[in-house]
Amino acid sequence: MSQGRFITFEGGEGAGKSTQMDLLAGLLRQRGLRVLTTREPGGAVGAEQIRRLLVEGEPGRWDPMTEVLLHFAARRDHVARTVWPALAEGQWVLCDRFADSTMAYQGYGHGLPSHAIEQLYDMTLGLFVPDLTLILDLPVEEGLRRAAGRGGAEDRYERMGMAFHERLRHGFTEIARHHPQRCVLVQATASVEDVHARIRSVVEERLPMQA
Amino acid sequence: MSQGRFITFEGGEGAGKSTQMDLLAGLLRQRGLRVLTTREPGGAVGAEQIRRLLVEGEPGRWDPMTEVLLHFAARRDHVARTVWPALAEGQWVLCDRFADSTMAYQGYGHGLPSHAIEQLYDMTLGLFVPDLTLILDLPVEEGLRRAAGRGGAEDRYERMGMAFHERLRHGFTEIARHHPQRCVLVQATASVEDVHARIRSVVEERLPMQA
Ligand SMILES: Nc1ncnc2c1ncn2[C@@H]1O[C@H](COP(=O)(O)OP(=O)(O)O)[C@@H](O)[C@H]1O
Ligand SMILES: Nc1ncnc2c1ncn2[C@@H]1O[C@H](COP(=O)(O)OP(=O)(O)O)[C@@H](O)[C@H]1O
Ligand SMILES: [Mg+2]
Ligand SMILES: [Mg+2]
Repeated sequence: MSQGRFITFEGGEGAGKSTQMDLLAGLLRQRGLRVLTTREPGGAVGAEQIRRLLVEGEPGRWDPMTEVLLHFAARRDHVARTVWPALAEGQWVLCDRFADSTMAYQGYGHGLPSHAIEQLYDMTLGLFVPDLTLILDLPVEEGLRRAAGRGGAEDRYERMGMAFHERLRHGFTEIARHHPQRCVLVQATASVEDVHARIRSVVEERLPMQA
Repeated sequence: MSQGRFITFEGGEGAGKSTQMDLLAGLLRQRGLRVLTTREPGGAVGAEQIRRLLVEGEPGRWDPMTEVLLHFAARRDHVARTVWPALAEGQWVLCDRFADSTMAYQGYGHGLPSHAIEQLYDMTLGLFVPDLTLILDLPVEEGLRRAAGRGGAEDRYERMGMAFHERLRHGFTEIARHHPQRCVLVQATASVEDVHARIRSVVEERLPMQA
């Protein structure tokens, strides 16, 4: 049985995370790998219930500290009940958003101290980190335009204002710069196919794909 | 305007926390004080939504770490949006359960390391602590018998088994022993009136009650 890998997709609203995760999942399955796709917040029964508290309703519904605790509660449930069991049985797990989103949104976006977020990470997940994180980068206006096209009630974060989304984008590029071993910044302005090709080459280079 | 005070009621299921909080609130109001009674988990709009995730459903619904994060998320919402504003305008705030319940239930009861719970407390509330904590102590069987009489769907913790509730009771007495400046252990086997009289004398001794 091949060893499971954990790959996370990060970036602002509409950057193409969900689109690219699905394309990579298809590619890995073609190669004979068992793949689980999942998302945050959510990805487990309890975590999806917490998700609704986070992605619906008014932007000011939670203060940043409350919000970060809810994200880590959902993350702990998701990792303990979905991600770890799947990795333990050799699956490749692809995740649409993970802890870097918390650092970008609640840290860079809302000004929560990064050491508090890092402490929460250590406390809930210990030394567990993704094998690879793909951070999709896109100008804010373009991302929000793409995201608006999707519609739906889960738009609490989308409605947080341009300055917030600019801090977010800056945050993601900083995260990529601070963790070059784990993260790759991917230009997401290109076509879906071109972004997929770039991701494919990154994955082939960084993670051996034998089934 | 007199200064507001924060008094918390702690103890196992059915110990008489809600009963005694209401009686003390009545007494304080008679003395001309403005009193807010509240509870945890809950006590604010968002915190009450989180409460439902915690007090309903199966005992094994959350792992202990997820659960402790949910409790602190609810606590942060409650304190930031209900408790601090009320204290700032001079009210006395009486709270049915607070952070000692997290230490007793998730720490002593479920074995989560106490330093993780203390770290979460510092992170979310800083140096803020109750002016007085009344810990009601009662044999476990008696408390569960009283609690069972109440009925209702909020029985997730009540269904956790005798050994769990014994660890809980032990935890509360340990907490009282470690924090003698803040906590008073109150024998809760006596009649409602006698327990109230004891609480009244503790409050009169520890906190000046001028309106
Ligand atoms: N490279 C791309 N070029 C143009 N549109 C794209 C591209 N990638 C995704 N989209 C479209 O933009 C919208 C948002 O993409 P999505 O994958 O849902 O982003 P995210 O999950 O990052 O919010 C979708 O309608 C999607 O079809
Ligand atoms: N000292 C007491 N003696 C006998 N019954 C009591 C006493 N205090 C409370 N009760 C009853 O026990 C039940 C549980 O009390 P309650 O105040 O709801 O406990 P808690 O809030 O600690 O769970 C209620 O029905 C209440 O009327
Ligand atoms: Mg998406
Ligand atoms: Mg009660």
